[in-house]
Amino acid sequence: MKGAQSIDKILAGDPRAVARAISVVEDGAAGAAGLMKAVFPHTGRGLVVGVTGSPGAGKSSLVDKLAGLYRSRGERVGIVAVDPSSPFSGGAILGDRIRMQALGLDPGVFIRSMATRGNLGGLARATVDAVAILDAAGYQKVVVETVGVGQDEVEIVKTADCSVVVLVPGMGDDIQAIKAGIMEIGDVFVINKADRDGVLRTEKELEALLSLAHRPDMWSPPIVKTVATENKGIEELAAAVESYRDFQKSAPGTHGRRGAVARWRILELLRERLLAQALERDGARGRLEALAQEVADKRRDPYSAVEELMGGTHN
Amino acid sequence: MKGAQSIDKILAGDPRAVARAISVVEDGAAGAAGLMKAVFPHTGRGLVVGVTGSPGAGKSSLVDKLAGLYRSRGERVGIVAVDPSSPFSGGAILGDRIRMQALGLDPGVFIRSMATRGNLGGLARATVDAVAILDAAGYQKVVVETVGVGQDEVEIVKTADCSVVVLVPGMGDDIQAIKAGIMEIGDVFVINKADRDGVLRTEKELEALLSLAHRPDMWSPPIVKTVATENKGIEELAAAVESYRDFQKSAPGTHGRRGAVARWRILELLRERLLAQALERDGARGRLEALAQEVADKRRDPYSAVEELMGGTHN
Repeated sequence: MKGAQSIDKILAGDPRAVARAISVVEDGAAGAAGLMKAVFPHTGRGLVVGVTGSPGAGKSSLVDKLAGLYRSRGERVGIVAVDPSSPFSGGAILGDRIRMQALGLDPGVFIRSMATRGNLGGLARATVDAVAILDAAGYQKVVVETVGVGQDEVEIVKTADCSVVVLVPGMGDDIQAIKAGIMEIGDVFVINKADRDGVLRTEKELEALLSLAHRPDMWSPPIVKTVATENKGIEELAAAVESYRDFQKSAPGTHGRRGAVARWRILELLRERLLAQALERDGARGRLEALAQEVADKRRDPYSAVEELMGGTHN
Repeated sequence: MKGAQSIDKILAGDPRAVARAISVVEDGAAGAAGLMKAVFPHTGRGLVVGVTGSPGAGKSSLVDKLAGLYRSRGERVGIVAVDPSSPFSGGAILGDRIRMQALGLDPGVFIRSMATRGNLGGLARATVDAVAILDAAGYQKVVVETVGVGQDEVEIVKTADCSVVVLVPGMGDDIQAIKAGIMEIGDVFVINKADRDGVLRTEKELEALLSLAHRPDMWSPPIVKTVATENKGIEELAAAVESYRDFQKSAPGTHGRRGAVARWRILELLRERLLAQALERDGARGRLEALAQEVADKRRDPYSAVEELMGGTHN
């Protein structure tokens, strides 16, 4: 399939072309450049919802139920799940299999798990590219879901049009610290498993912390209580997401946010391309392996190893 | 303070010199190079313990109690806590303050939280450098603690001599997926809050998953049950960590692991230095901001923005 044909098929929403395109962006930024340049002008039509929260918060169930609601409204839904914690094992594949059972083989839903491949990075960049491809392919709703609260995960969720942070009642002593960390990320907060003990206390704590937070756009993030496994609160969640989107269209603070997201995307991509360029030079990979061995044997420190690699690539 | 004096003070274990050195590595790799080259030959004496697990698993309490045990044995303990989820808020500072209360002002304990500064990266590299500084400064035990299961956090924990993964009973439906992801990381598993319901089930599930896992070094990770808040199981945890270290000294598979860690450290550092170098060129930062604005306004795609930045830095 030629590039131009491939783009036409993506824009027509052909799931195979979309899947192939996501594989291209997963494989590396160099190969993705032509594709993404063609895709980019067609993005910005769908609503991208970012969902994050701790493992065990029930994010996957929540995302599946939200996708089901969007489907019942006749919208096509793309789901991109980031599973960076399992670089070697079948975590991502396992996740896909479980979800396929829940959402069936509905052709209006596209599900893709992203996992790291080695340690050359690029997962965050590839994820954001995958979201852009689904957006361009006419999926009206694209949900990007990240496990955990790591740095990349936070950045990915920030790129969404609306970021949803999922909590559960009674998360224990760490809750203050967690909340402090996610306070700037959430446009909408969900307390899932809201049939459990402690939901009122969690809600009060969250309200107190939100009242202290200062947002440049003056938005007050709503708190939605859900029981995803029983499909409770999903309509309210969808409404909260829509209300943030409506607010955002007229709010003055969003231009700065878009600029920060764009800056982050450029830096992610630049980092990846610079590293790839450095390692493409003749003999660079061999030198890297030899230097890694020297560092492992404590015959050399990592800093002088890097200076040698950089000297070798720039002189 | 001159560089050579500073190194002498670090090696003598002066907490102020250590704190200042960690600030230097936090500020960026370029300034840290001279320092870390001098520090590196003095590393490898202490035992570095990595601790990871979900938010709410009680990692901080566990680490504090483990530090208390080491102190009672007369060892100096360094703690490096990674808190990447709060780039803006006072998460790290809050964490420090809470811990200072628990461990008091014991001069034999050094605690430092690491947080991101902007989005130029380098947190993982800075954390590993901070651990090396504490090791060189004669802390017999250095505990590096990461929140969450993000990619950087996983890599940081892998650099430790022994990696401890903390779980809690009844984490919900996601537990299979989480476990699949952390299976390769844990040298020792802890089920904390082991006075809660569901501990036996979690233990059985974990045993089943561990029996399926294949480790190149043939180590069988022990499972330790703790109630950190009541100081239960901490001696057993310390013993499990020691037993892994003893095993590791004679095991054939560890050389490959050290090589992989060294390779990762070099790549992290290389990525950071290449980006810094690219942005140090005349006018590069201004071009970056202008391009970010163009991307935000959808007048340009991120890929061609990066090509312009790279063209400008290499022609």
